[in-house]
Amino acid sequence: MMPHGPQRNYAISDSLVDELARLGLSHACLSPGSRSTPLVLSLARHEGIKTWVHLDERSAAFFALGLARALGRPVAVVCTSGTAAANFFPAVVEAYHARVPLLVLTADRPAEVWGWGANQTIDQTRIYGSHAKWSVNLSPPDALADLLRYVRATGCRAVATAIQAPAGPVHINIPFGEPLVPEQATGNSELGASFAGIETLEGRPTGKPYLGGVQGTRRLGGEELRSLAQSLRGVKRGLIVCGAQEDLKFPVAVSSLAARLGYPVLADPLSQVRCGAHERGLIMDGYDAFLRSEALCRAFAPEVILRFGSVPTSQALLNFLRQHASARQVLIDDGGWPDPIHVASEMLCADARAVAEELAGAAEREADPEWADRWRTASELASRAVAAELKNMGELFEGKIFRELAFLLPEKAALFAGNSMPVRDMDTFFPSVSKQVRFAGNRGASGIDGVLSTALGFGAAIPEPLVLVVGDLSFYHDMNGLFAAKKNRLAATVILVNNDGGGIFSFLPQKRYPEYFETYFGTPHGLAFETAAGLYGVEFRQVKSWEEFPSLLSESIGKPGTRILEVRTDRERNVELHRRVWSAAAEAVDPVAKE
Amino acid sequence: MMPHGPQRNYAISDSLVDELARLGLSHACLSPGSRSTPLVLSLARHEGIKTWVHLDERSAAFFALGLARALGRPVAVVCTSGTAAANFFPAVVEAYHARVPLLVLTADRPAEVWGWGANQTIDQTRIYGSHAKWSVNLSPPDALADLLRYVRATGCRAVATAIQAPAGPVHINIPFGEPLVPEQATGNSELGASFAGIETLEGRPTGKPYLGGVQGTRRLGGEELRSLAQSLRGVKRGLIVCGAQEDLKFPVAVSSLAARLGYPVLADPLSQVRCGAHERGLIMDGYDAFLRSEALCRAFAPEVILRFGSVPTSQALLNFLRQHASARQVLIDDGGWPDPIHVASEMLCADARAVAEELAGAAEREADPEWADRWRTASELASRAVAAELKNMGELFEGKIFRELAFLLPEKAALFAGNSMPVRDMDTFFPSVSKQVRFAGNRGASGIDGVLSTALGFGAAIPEPLVLVVGDLSFYHDMNGLFAAKKNRLAATVILVNNDGGGIFSFLPQKRYPEYFETYFGTPHGLAFETAAGLYGVEFRQVKSWEEFPSLLSESIGKPGTRILEVRTDRERNVELHRRVWSAAAEAVDPVAKE
Repeated sequence: MMPHGPQRNYAISDSLVDELARLGLSHACLSPGSRSTPLVLSLARHEGIKTWVHLDERSAAFFALGLARALGRPVAVVCTSGTAAANFFPAVVEAYHARVPLLVLTADRPAEVWGWGANQTIDQTRIYGSHAKWSVNLSPPDALADLLRYVRATGCRAVATAIQAPAGPVHINIPFGEPLVPEQATGNSELGASFAGIETLEGRPTGKPYLGGVQGTRRLGGEELRSLAQSLRGVKRGLIVCGAQEDLKFPVAVSSLAARLGYPVLADPLSQVRCGAHERGLIMDGYDAFLRSEALCRAFAPEVILRFGSVPTSQALLNFLRQHASARQVLIDDGGWPDPIHVASEMLCADARAVAEELAGAAEREADPEWADRWRTASELASRAVAAELKNMGELFEGKIFRELAFLLPEKAALFAGNSMPVRDMDTFFPSVSKQVRFAGNRGASGIDGVLSTALGFGAAIPEPLVLVVGDLSFYHDMNGLFAAKKNRLAATVILVNNDGGGIFSFLPQKRYPEYFETYFGTPHGLAFETAAGLYGVEFRQVKSWEEFPSLLSESIGKPGTRILEVRTDRERNVELHRRVWSAAAEAVDPVAKE
Repeated sequence: MMPHGPQRNYAISDSLVDELARLGLSHACLSPGSRSTPLVLSLARHEGIKTWVHLDERSAAFFALGLARALGRPVAVVCTSGTAAANFFPAVVEAYHARVPLLVLTADRPAEVWGWGANQTIDQTRIYGSHAKWSVNLSPPDALADLLRYVRATGCRAVATAIQAPAGPVHINIPFGEPLVPEQATGNSELGASFAGIETLEGRPTGKPYLGGVQGTRRLGGEELRSLAQSLRGVKRGLIVCGAQEDLKFPVAVSSLAARLGYPVLADPLSQVRCGAHERGLIMDGYDAFLRSEALCRAFAPEVILRFGSVPTSQALLNFLRQHASARQVLIDDGGWPDPIHVASEMLCADARAVAEELAGAAEREADPEWADRWRTASELASRAVAAELKNMGELFEGKIFRELAFLLPEKAALFAGNSMPVRDMDTFFPSVSKQVRFAGNRGASGIDGVLSTALGFGAAIPEPLVLVVGDLSFYHDMNGLFAAKKNRLAATVILVNNDGGGIFSFLPQKRYPEYFETYFGTPHGLAFETAAGLYGVEFRQVKSWEEFPSLLSESIGKPGTRILEVRTDRERNVELHRRVWSAAAEAVDPVAKE
């Protein structure tokens, strides 16, 4: 039996939401809109789901991305029909490339008005193109029972698809006809009373998913593993490179593998491998500085490089990999081909942690101990040189922020770095420490958009206090994201590195065109962000010296509310200081390079 | 002969930009980025093209949309690779549905790194899906001369495609390899000196386009016209409905047709037909109010309805059209099927103005003069009733803003209405006056996003002073757009209707769910927009009474700089007042309805 309009809408939305909750959905980001009413009211009425109301869909989607990234579980973001869905696009793209299981639920007008000029009606079918892992129009079959089976099964498949490696966004487009509220509306304030008469297909007993199951892990077979281990025998100069990845159990696995093989590990902070309680004896942290020494890059020629995670942030490291294109370079990844320089010679399509763990069991140590020692010495010399430079630096140098944070952050903390300079400075300047720091950034597509919202969402999902370091253009881009901080009284510390424009451009050859540089690249804006902080009722403090930085930080970290600590810098001077530090590091490793 | 990297990049960008300029491109919106450097420097160096620098690509694209909408000519919007392109999406969708010739130029990394995990590299091929009229990857052939012919021809085709009816966005994705600056860089401040050595294929002599041509207009043939005119003979009760359209010569054409046929015209302000110096004897303005009388809708049954432009804004008018589904309803449009209620019986696929002009020449007047008189009487009675209600209304009622504007706007002005309430209030309350008002709104996809930027861009392109009426959620959504006002000292008057949330929802049945309403639909935010105005250095005035409205307005309109005039209202009260006005109008037309 077909239920009439509203009952049908709510049968769909109630069933879908119930199913998603059974699968572990615990957060949904919503924006005001009429067409999405059934989804919104179903989510609002579900006790197990926390709803977050945002006014700008672009920020909403990035906030949801942050939540999902922190939780490693799907988070829903819901919008009404029309350009609202288009505003999700930047976050969907980031989720796709960063492998974040974002569940995008777009309400739509019913199919009969598609393409006929109706209000707020655009083509939402596969609207995210190749950037959604799966996109489905929830076009209901006629019979109610069939419909509800379809809805529940689709919900299960959407979640499974979103989390299956490589994780990513899934899009469900749901057309709703009018009326959009339940027909038996009474306006009664008793929860549920006004939603009488909705037929739903009961889910499976005892709260199980309708279409349960298990996600397999892609692994190498025993023979393949033995063959890989065998192929590493006799290798004296091996190296492990770890780019961004979010498996929190990977650091232990890869450091065990490194210990087993005797390979130094060049670990991007975003790999989660650089810092923590795991064995860090082979973890190199100063490579972005010391690989700028050409002599060293020549002298430190590896035979084999095992590459895990995304393409590393460090350009110096990328250049090193390119320079050693004739070395055996092995990519280990389930789902990506992270090698834009096309130097890899093998691609192991399997889960990185599983390979690391199982290879550690199968491999034997044959590397030359001197090889690791030389890397360790270089890393230590470079780090010491960098530390010395920074120590003497009284002025507010952008890179120094991260070194200070390494010592000032509490034992457990989350550090989110914005693109484009902060994430690079984090790589260069955050040393390997035993502290547990959860590093994060939007490195899927590496946009400067949505950073504030992603970080706030990330912080909202985890117990660790959140610190975000973000540049001024990026801060401006997503200033609307601060509304979530105000509305939800989120706890966060935002270190706003304000050099009044695009700092990274001063490092690029565009700088040589003074008649165009400031207008089109430097782009100074002169915005007083204290005013923006005032708009959203968040505290604003200017950091005037390194002396006051620790106290400003400790007054903020872990405290309720959001605070912006502005560090004002100069773009020109920033380049000079970076170059000075890099030179010092390159000079420091000179003796090792010439050995 | 293949030039090497940078020369090749600039050969492409210089040729493309030169070609676009020959085709009439005079504005380009740019955002900072590295990959787009060749495009940016080519545009910056072209004397005939004004560049606008924006920091948020979403606002940039909407600003470009506003410029293009005002000019009726292509305007370029340029971005770097990655999510920057995704931020254009909402404006591209609006441009597609609103038929605005937006030229979207996205810089890309070279194809060899696509899909290999490179920084800021996403799938930009057909990234706007079905929302771009044409999308091309400018993948260059090897030989330079072939390449440059391809680039120039593509530029010409892009412009022609963008403006061909129905106009819309065209996307050119342009991969650039490094280095991104010209190789012979000298840093010389003499314009051009640093761009030596770029080979370009000369364009056609005397500044002609490389691939010139003419855009035909789709018209009915003589026989088809005669047959149409013939079919209207003997029709006593005909009606013309005009929805949004932007052909500024259409009003004269359609009012001549109306005069010829003796058909009343129900004219949405966005049709440009409601106001102006053209013959307005048959233009009805009060229909959104008086068509709420069921008795009248029954009594005023038409035989034939000629429908021009988009689907009308007025829900009352749409209901009327649905009610008279058995009448002959003729859509006249080149490229759209604006009939989500599926009541049209004929679709004339041809240019609206051409049909209006030619049908006026072929048709004869056979309508019953009483028919038009009755409509005129109803419209006048309703308008008078509305006027009387508003006159007595001392409080700040949202609808009254538009009636006040009708009298306070200067002789030539542009009035941009935001979605969702302002555009409806404009339809209901802006009377037909002889003043030349250029009406505008983002009615393609009717989003609340991007309104500020679109309006500012619209105002920046035209000599008329710009007034924008926008709600608070919409204002907040695109607050970043105010940066353009600050940076370029744009002249604009923004009437910010602030009811602290989503006013339209109070009219909807969602209102009956008090336990969810404010949280998910009303969504009060408590933002003090005066602070936002301060951030961007624009003036902010609160309108406290109707008495001070005229002087605040006249101190702003046509003056340099941007001012925000905030009108604070109450959402609940707003519904009451609308209903009171509608009742008064329905009551006033009762005598006519019963005739």
